[in-house]
Amino acid sequence: MEHSSHQNKRVVVYDTTLRDGMQGEGMSLSAEEKVRVAHALDRLGVDLIEAGFPASNPKEETLFALLADETFEHAQIAAFGMTRRRDLAAEQDPALRLLADCFAPVCTIVGKTWKLHLEKVTQVDPQENLRMIEESVAFLVRAGKRVIYDAEHFFDAWREDPSYALRCLAAAVDAGAECVTLCDTNGATLPGAVAAATARVVEELGDRVLVGIHTHDDAGCGVANTLVAVEAGARLVQGTINGYGERCGNANLTTIIPNLQLKMGFDCVRPEQLARLTEISHLIDEICNVTPNPNQPYVGKNAFAHKGGMHIAGVNRDARTFEHIDPALVGADRRILVSELAGKGTIQARADETGLEIDEETAQRVIARVKELEHHGYQFEAADGSLDLLIRKETGNYEPLFRLESWRVISEKRADGRVETEATIKLWVDGKRYVRTAEGNGPVNALDRALRAAIVERYPHLQEIELVNFKVRILDETKGTGAVTRVLIDASDGVETWGAIGVSENIIEASWEALVDSLEAGMLPRRAQHHRPAVAERSR
Amino acid sequence: MEHSSHQNKRVVVYDTTLRDGMQGEGMSLSAEEKVRVAHALDRLGVDLIEAGFPASNPKEETLFALLADETFEHAQIAAFGMTRRRDLAAEQDPALRLLADCFAPVCTIVGKTWKLHLEKVTQVDPQENLRMIEESVAFLVRAGKRVIYDAEHFFDAWREDPSYALRCLAAAVDAGAECVTLCDTNGATLPGAVAAATARVVEELGDRVLVGIHTHDDAGCGVANTLVAVEAGARLVQGTINGYGERCGNANLTTIIPNLQLKMGFDCVRPEQLARLTEISHLIDEICNVTPNPNQPYVGKNAFAHKGGMHIAGVNRDARTFEHIDPALVGADRRILVSELAGKGTIQARADETGLEIDEETAQRVIARVKELEHHGYQFEAADGSLDLLIRKETGNYEPLFRLESWRVISEKRADGRVETEATIKLWVDGKRYVRTAEGNGPVNALDRALRAAIVERYPHLQEIELVNFKVRILDETKGTGAVTRVLIDASDGVETWGAIGVSENIIEASWEALVDSLEAGMLPRRAQHHRPAVAERSR
Repeated sequence: MEHSSHQNKRVVVYDTTLRDGMQGEGMSLSAEEKVRVAHALDRLGVDLIEAGFPASNPKEETLFALLADETFEHAQIAAFGMTRRRDLAAEQDPALRLLADCFAPVCTIVGKTWKLHLEKVTQVDPQENLRMIEESVAFLVRAGKRVIYDAEHFFDAWREDPSYALRCLAAAVDAGAECVTLCDTNGATLPGAVAAATARVVEELGDRVLVGIHTHDDAGCGVANTLVAVEAGARLVQGTINGYGERCGNANLTTIIPNLQLKMGFDCVRPEQLARLTEISHLIDEICNVTPNPNQPYVGKNAFAHKGGMHIAGVNRDARTFEHIDPALVGADRRILVSELAGKGTIQARADETGLEIDEETAQRVIARVKELEHHGYQFEAADGSLDLLIRKETGNYEPLFRLESWRVISEKRADGRVETEATIKLWVDGKRYVRTAEGNGPVNALDRALRAAIVERYPHLQEIELVNFKVRILDETKGTGAVTRVLIDASDGVETWGAIGVSENIIEASWEALVDSLEAGMLPRRAQHHRPAVAERSR
Repeated sequence: MEHSSHQNKRVVVYDTTLRDGMQGEGMSLSAEEKVRVAHALDRLGVDLIEAGFPASNPKEETLFALLADETFEHAQIAAFGMTRRRDLAAEQDPALRLLADCFAPVCTIVGKTWKLHLEKVTQVDPQENLRMIEESVAFLVRAGKRVIYDAEHFFDAWREDPSYALRCLAAAVDAGAECVTLCDTNGATLPGAVAAATARVVEELGDRVLVGIHTHDDAGCGVANTLVAVEAGARLVQGTINGYGERCGNANLTTIIPNLQLKMGFDCVRPEQLARLTEISHLIDEICNVTPNPNQPYVGKNAFAHKGGMHIAGVNRDARTFEHIDPALVGADRRILVSELAGKGTIQARADETGLEIDEETAQRVIARVKELEHHGYQFEAADGSLDLLIRKETGNYEPLFRLESWRVISEKRADGRVETEATIKLWVDGKRYVRTAEGNGPVNALDRALRAAIVERYPHLQEIELVNFKVRILDETKGTGAVTRVLIDASDGVETWGAIGVSENIIEASWEALVDSLEAGMLPRRAQHHRPAVAERSR
């Protein structure tokens, strides 16, 4: 690795989605999911993937065992740990020994820098802290590791005692660390202070070591702080995809990479990798079960959307007038054009995926239908299941699961105050009529139960399908209770998750539409494969 | 207004939530809702509220008519428009004349600065553009307005031709503008360039005029760009609450204000106003039906949440170790304290307003009840009508409009595909039993009609009350159709608008609860006054 110097335009991208990103509220991935994320990061061209503590719990153990057998095109795995305990020699510290023994070629260790923290929290003497840093780094270097040293609370420490903060870094450098990372652990620092401190560190140590930067978004400056640090000479950036992380999140690599590369002339990933940024951001959101932020810079669904009439006219005359970059560079599409141009690609890709051939003319017909439905309040971006069905309907490949005769929902608030709901469904499957009634805790729940009761005999795979998410949006709220309602249902068979949509003035009808789509989409040939083994096993 | 100078620590807060914020996807507020937002902004201590074009459409016309009659503690209203058309004198331009004639004391006009834009989009000669700026500003100044000039695309223009960009600003200053705002319209610019250009402008014009800054978040630097501009001498900041706005959003005032005030020593709002930041951010999210971003700096639910065990231990020993500010300063003081401290004031103020005396003990009882209900998913920030009723229930001043016996809703999808809904309500008013059935386009609409049919004879004022807004949120989306539903209904009598809330597993029951509250709150003594004249007139 090269050292920090202003001539060097190469910035090392260090991703900590799998470690610091998992501190975010509600974040939890299985070891297998983490491996999928690691491969996505590799496709994006990330240099280092911080995977976690090698053996802090059985899940991390499994993860490291899995990762050891994976091959990546470019990325290397970094294992994370901390400086030795104050009462043990480095070679006797069990956590450091695990780091030394793990397969990862890079070890990142974090240590203290801030005297307030040493005094109030760890109660370690500042001199002993310097020895802990030096001996821990030296031990790992002797074990053949490339070592990155993360200086926790660096900028808080710098504010109070810059010379001690520098000595902490120097201890790591003297012991052979190839990078020292300046961490704004609390996200407290603003760009001016980050730039000034980083410049001083680069001046002092930049000829001996790579200087890294690790920021958080507590003051809304996570991205800017990383950028000004790079301007000041830092050449390794730590962050997470989509800015996942504790509190307000870590520095968002999804924003930092295109800023560095497209606006500041630094070299992070290859252009064809950058063009995958949008896809990979959404894929990782998907794996983490996070709803993509539509306003996220560069990759959000609205990032290149234009609403104001003047803006649209401007973009049509010269895109530079209202677009800060060409969206294609990060794999994003301009929203006004989505249905007409990008739309066709999406439709064809979608058809391919579900094993359908679709010609130009049919694709155009599907797009026309999508546009018409979107005009009525449908929205297919999150309703891929409904989109699959729509394509099948237009290509003549659609076969309904059943033929509905009628349904009826009765919801009652009784004289004793209890609320009860029941649904009755009458339908036909294979020429046979089914009438089923079910109770539920609400109208949609009752309909779902009655429908399943009616068709499960013919379609036992349905048992594998669960409704995992239910969203209601009133499209014209100002019409009061006469407004149009859009219902989105996400369903899952445990392997895959898909969305279905329904729109109606009547919330029950909108829910019914989404409900039927969610089940029918789950029974399409490709998805139905998921269920068979499970069912077969069960019948044994 | 003072001019920009480094000695001056006062920063003018200019909110454009109601204008630029409404360009965000899915944003749409009625005129009455905009008035509610304006009052919330006033409580926060914002200096200027940009309300929109005074007469671009009937909704804006209504808004300006309403605002003209409102009184604000501190905030002033700014009307927004643009420089004169190239083929008309300023005094003949109809849009400028509307600005000159409207009640707002401040007019903000936007004009072109970037030659690319002049050439490709507006096809206006650069000299003519300077005249357009100067004459438009001069016309409004002559009409007695304080004028703010927004230089669109300022930083793009600066990159290509700083001297022309400066001449555009100077034209506005010469004509009497009291502020020139540097706009990063496309959000293209990074902090270094913003700081450098702003510093030059302040050097050139800062002794004659206030310099303002208007940024967007397309590069994830909206907040940082505003902060570095203030460091460079800008003294008016434009932005939106919660960062609403087109594409990736505008600069987020909810982050900028505490950064300027708590970290940079500038003076924006009073400390007790800053302590309302969290409450007001959430209230405006509610009015706009935007799910609050849990990771938003300062005000997000996770902003001061700690997950890592080490962090929690650190915070317990010394909060500074893992908290960048004291959360109480922005009203985010640990969730447990919100209802206990901030809550009591709110309850007492609310009781006062509705003409009730409430003692300490009762206020405590109301708070306990609010906390209990919030635990079950209720949320009273946007449901002031329900809160009024709750206070009356605890003080023994509540009298229901009717006694419900039962209701029943039947929704049917018939064999011919038609969907029909009817509701039957049985209830008692003044010892008399009413049974009424009504059809509707959905279950809530049918219930609303049946209820009104049953009680309108006894309460003719009800005819004045309209349901103007209906919002549904699923509280635990991942429970599928078994999740809890929260329904918010806004009702209005044409004078005042209030919110009512219902929560239940059953969406119909939740809607019923909100429906009854919305009507009962509208019939409370204070509001009932609004109706009488109208009814009396009609009976003449």
